[in-house]
Amino acid sequence: MRTVFWENNELKMIDQRILPARFEVISYRAHKDVAFAITDMVVRGAPAIGAAAAFGLALAGYESDSTSTDGLLADLQTAAAVLKSARPTAVNLAWAVDRLMNVAKSITGSTADLRVAVLNEAQKLADEDVEINKRMAEHGAALINDGDTIIHHCNTGALATVDWGTALGVIRTAHEQGKRIHVLVDETRPRLQGARLTAWELEQYGIPYEIISDNMSGYFLKAGQAQKVFFGADRVAANGDVANKIGTYMLALAAFDNGIPAYSVVPTSTIDLSLAHGGLIPIEERNTDEVLGIQFHGEPIAPKNARARNPAFDVTPNRLLSGIVTENGVVYPPFDVNFAKVIR
Amino acid sequence: MRTVFWENNELKMIDQRILPARFEVISYRAHKDVAFAITDMVVRGAPAIGAAAAFGLALAGYESDSTSTDGLLADLQTAAAVLKSARPTAVNLAWAVDRLMNVAKSITGSTADLRVAVLNEAQKLADEDVEINKRMAEHGAALINDGDTIIHHCNTGALATVDWGTALGVIRTAHEQGKRIHVLVDETRPRLQGARLTAWELEQYGIPYEIISDNMSGYFLKAGQAQKVFFGADRVAANGDVANKIGTYMLALAAFDNGIPAYSVVPTSTIDLSLAHGGLIPIEERNTDEVLGIQFHGEPIAPKNARARNPAFDVTPNRLLSGIVTENGVVYPPFDVNFAKVIR
Repeated sequence: MRTVFWENNELKMIDQRILPARFEVISYRAHKDVAFAITDMVVRGAPAIGAAAAFGLALAGYESDSTSTDGLLADLQTAAAVLKSARPTAVNLAWAVDRLMNVAKSITGSTADLRVAVLNEAQKLADEDVEINKRMAEHGAALINDGDTIIHHCNTGALATVDWGTALGVIRTAHEQGKRIHVLVDETRPRLQGARLTAWELEQYGIPYEIISDNMSGYFLKAGQAQKVFFGADRVAANGDVANKIGTYMLALAAFDNGIPAYSVVPTSTIDLSLAHGGLIPIEERNTDEVLGIQFHGEPIAPKNARARNPAFDVTPNRLLSGIVTENGVVYPPFDVNFAKVIR
Repeated sequence: MRTVFWENNELKMIDQRILPARFEVISYRAHKDVAFAITDMVVRGAPAIGAAAAFGLALAGYESDSTSTDGLLADLQTAAAVLKSARPTAVNLAWAVDRLMNVAKSITGSTADLRVAVLNEAQKLADEDVEINKRMAEHGAALINDGDTIIHHCNTGALATVDWGTALGVIRTAHEQGKRIHVLVDETRPRLQGARLTAWELEQYGIPYEIISDNMSGYFLKAGQAQKVFFGADRVAANGDVANKIGTYMLALAAFDNGIPAYSVVPTSTIDLSLAHGGLIPIEERNTDEVLGIQFHGEPIAPKNARARNPAFDVTPNRLLSGIVTENGVVYPPFDVNFAKVIR
C-alpha cells in the first residue's frame, strides 16, 4: 500500500500522527481538508506532501461547480494557494502544485477534460515519485558497505514519500542487496518520527535497528560505532545547503567532527536553484505543544505554564555534507557547480 | 530546603524522579537504600550524589552493631564499596566516600566517636558544597552580560547539588546581580532533567526561559539567538576533557562552530587528575526504558519490541571549551597547565 494514493474518487493517506500505536487510512474529498492534513502532519515528508498536494488540487477540480474552463482555472488557482500555504519549508509542495497548474493552464478542452488532466498529472507525479526513489536508492546503496552501522534522522521511508523512500529507501535497497546493516534511529524530537515511523518501517523490512535520543549520535560517532550518516531534505539551496528536520545540522556537525561521511538523499525536485544559499530557506516554527506534550512516567514533562520554542527545521551548511544523492546520481562538492550534472 | 539533608537521624532527599508533577521528600535509614536511590536517580547531579553518598556512609555507621572500631571500620568499608558502585561516571561519588573513609580511619576514640566523626564530616562536606557553589557562581556570573540568552543543558541547579547549583547557580547569581537573562533550556533526553527540573527551578527564581529539544540548540546558536552556553560536569580529566550528561558534546560542538563560548562549571572535586584524558572516563549505559518509556499523545513512541541504546554521558573534548569555572576561579586553556592555579 502507498502512503498517498487515489481510490474511488478520493485521496487516501495513512495517518502518520498515530503510528505505531494504530494503523489507519483517512479518506479526503476536499482540498481544504488535505491542506489541513498537511499542516497537521497526517502526511509529512517532502515528497509525500508534494503528492498529497497534487491530489488535493485534483480534488479541487471536482469540488468546483464551474462550467467554464476560466472559472475552473480560477478555482484551481485559489485551491493552489491554499495548498501551497499549508507548510512553508519543503519546496516539493509548491513544486507539485505549480507543475499541476502548468498542465491545467495548457488544457484546451472542456472543464471535464481539465479535471481529468489535473488528476492524471497528479497520478503521474505520484508514480514518478516511486520510480525516482528507486533510482535514488540504487545510487545511494553503492555508498554503503557490508557491515555498516548507519545513523538516520527523522523518517525518510515509504511514509515520507509515495513509496520506498529517500534516505531510508537507500538503506532498504542496500539491505535487499544482501548488505548487513545496522541502523541507529534518531528518535527525532519533538514529533518522534524516527522512533514512531522509521522504527515501524524497519521492523517490517527486517532491518536491525536501535533507537537513540538525538543527542546521543555524537557519542556513537565519536566512539567509532557508526560508519555513515543518512538523512533526507525538505529543501536544498543552489549552493548545497540543506534544510531538513530540526537536529540534522548538529548530527552532520558531529559526523564531520569525526570524519564520518554524511549524505542527504533527495529527488531533484527538492533542489531549489532559485535560492542562492540555505539562509534564504523559510523555516517553519510550529506549535510548542509538540515539545511540551509528551509524558514521562505518565506525567507532564514541564511545569504547568512552561513556554517553549519549536523550529521544525534547520539548515546544514554544504561544507558538512559528503554528497547529495539524487535520482540522477550522487553529487559531490562543489555542489553549486555539480548540480548541473543531475538537473536537466 | 536543601536537596540532600540530615534531619532526625535520617537522610532526606527530594525525589527528583517525579518532579515537576509532585514534590516529595523521601527519608533514608539504610545505606543500601541510599545506593539504590542514587542508581535510580531519586538524587542526581555530581555534587548531590557525593553528598548523598557521604550521608549514606554516616547511616552505615549507625546501621553497624559492631562494638569494636576495627569491626565498625570494616562495616564502613563494605558500605563504602556499595555506595561507590551505585553509579560509575561522576567522580564526586568516590571522592566523597573516600574523604569520609580517610576521616574514619584517622579516628582514635570509641565506636561512638567514629560514628559521630563520619556524620560530622558528611555534614561538613554538604555545607562546603553550598559555600563552594556560591563562590563558583560569583566567578561564573562575571562571564555573563546583561541581555544574554544562555543555552543550558541538563539540570545543574539546587537539585543537582546540596543547594544553589553549578552552571545554573551561575545563572541564578547573574540574575540576582540584576542582569537580564533568558535561558533556552535543553529538555535533556532521555530523562528530561532540563524540562522537568531546570524549568521548575527557573520558575521559582523568576528567570525567563523557554524549553527546547536538545537537537534545536544548533539552530539557535547558528541564528545568533544565544550568546553563551553553560553546563556542569560529572568528571573532568586532567587535560580538561569533560564528561557530562549525554548531548553535551553535540551542544559544545554547535557552540564552537558558531564562535559562541561554552563553559563547564564544576567544583574542583569533579576534576580527576588521575585520568589523563576523557577517553579514560567510564561512561554508564542505563536501562533503555528511559529512552522508550515516554508517551506521545498518550501512546508509546516506538513499536512494541523496539530496542534502544542509552549511554548516559558523553565526553566533550577540551578544544571545544572556552573555560572551566571552579570555586577558585575560571580556568582557561591550556587546562592541563592551568588547573594548577585552582587545585590546591
